[in-house]
Amino acid sequence: MSVIRRLPRYYRFLCELDDRGVERISSTELSKIMHSTASQVRQDLNCFGGFGQQGYGYTVKGLRDEIKKILGLNKGYKAVMIGAGNFGAAIVNYLDFNKLGFELAGCFDCDKEKLGKQLGGLTIMDDSLLDSFCKENEIEAAFLCIPKESVESILDKLYGLGIKCYWNFSHYDLSSKYSDVVVENVHLSDSLMTLCYRMNNSK
Amino acid sequence: MSVIRRLPRYYRFLCELDDRGVERISSTELSKIMHSTASQVRQDLNCFGGFGQQGYGYTVKGLRDEIKKILGLNKGYKAVMIGAGNFGAAIVNYLDFNKLGFELAGCFDCDKEKLGKQLGGLTIMDDSLLDSFCKENEIEAAFLCIPKESVESILDKLYGLGIKCYWNFSHYDLSSKYSDVVVENVHLSDSLMTLCYRMNNSK
Repeated sequence: MSVIRRLPRYYRFLCELDDRGVERISSTELSKIMHSTASQVRQDLNCFGGFGQQGYGYTVKGLRDEIKKILGLNKGYKAVMIGAGNFGAAIVNYLDFNKLGFELAGCFDCDKEKLGKQLGGLTIMDDSLLDSFCKENEIEAAFLCIPKESVESILDKLYGLGIKCYWNFSHYDLSSKYSDVVVENVHLSDSLMTLCYRMNNSK
Repeated sequence: MSVIRRLPRYYRFLCELDDRGVERISSTELSKIMHSTASQVRQDLNCFGGFGQQGYGYTVKGLRDEIKKILGLNKGYKAVMIGAGNFGAAIVNYLDFNKLGFELAGCFDCDKEKLGKQLGGLTIMDDSLLDSFCKENEIEAAFLCIPKESVESILDKLYGLGIKCYWNFSHYDLSSKYSDVVVENVHLSDSLMTLCYRMNNSK
């Protein structure tokens, strides 16, 4: 696992430590929370300039703010949610996008029943408005909560609008079609199959 | 990434190939779908006994069934969903647990408003029934769709009932408390922060 994958976890743990009023932490303590080693922690944080002081450790707030900056969580990238079904709606209600680097600017669905309804303070719009909306609002990212079969045509449209960053919950392989996109895939069924495998092999 | 993490993807792609009527596939073709190399594919599948024939490749149905067996997707491990809020409900409606190795036997929530309502063909039950239900139904796994603050007390109860396998959507660190549990964590916010970082660094 690369240091990039670990950064969100560092950030999460540091936010929790700060919430609990902890002011500083050693690499050894941090490594325990991370299920890692002190030397791994020092090496990870050195990648980004190293923020600790020997014999003192890290300032929780300071390190948290540095990692926040490295992750770019203050950028507020404008994004659209594609698919306002059960799953898309749950994601919108579940996550605080503003704290995670994004501003959710619009929600789209092709189901006429959903149009005009509210989701996360936004009015669900028809896919036919996607083009004008994304241009007017300078959208940079899309969250795809639609079935695999529906992805290709929407992706072609979004890519044509210059949107190259995707959070993808479908099993459609975006980077096979467009090699220059930035994609984070969340494959829930793969995760559950992995749990099944591990249960099988833990007995 | 270990071969175990790749197995669900092999399985998914082989199911799709079979749906499309493809009967056999070479390691080179399979490696393209997997964004991998032919030698990696051969090495992965050799770990489990090797199912290919030189110059012929793999039988799609045969390989799919072998991987299904290795993953244990035919086991139907009995599981409970803890938390029937927006997110838990979306997960229940979104995934076909039976195809992923599990049988969802019960859904629990502490919110009195939700009790008695239907979810995925099941009646949502009060947390107070968890004990007797899990014992009677020989539950082996739990899916945790509850906030971090609520996890510890439920986990103590489930662990006390002998349940050691968890699919965890909260940020509670289960393996810190019980070192012998099998846990698959899904950290959606980490995934989104990673997308933000990669957007930042792709410009």
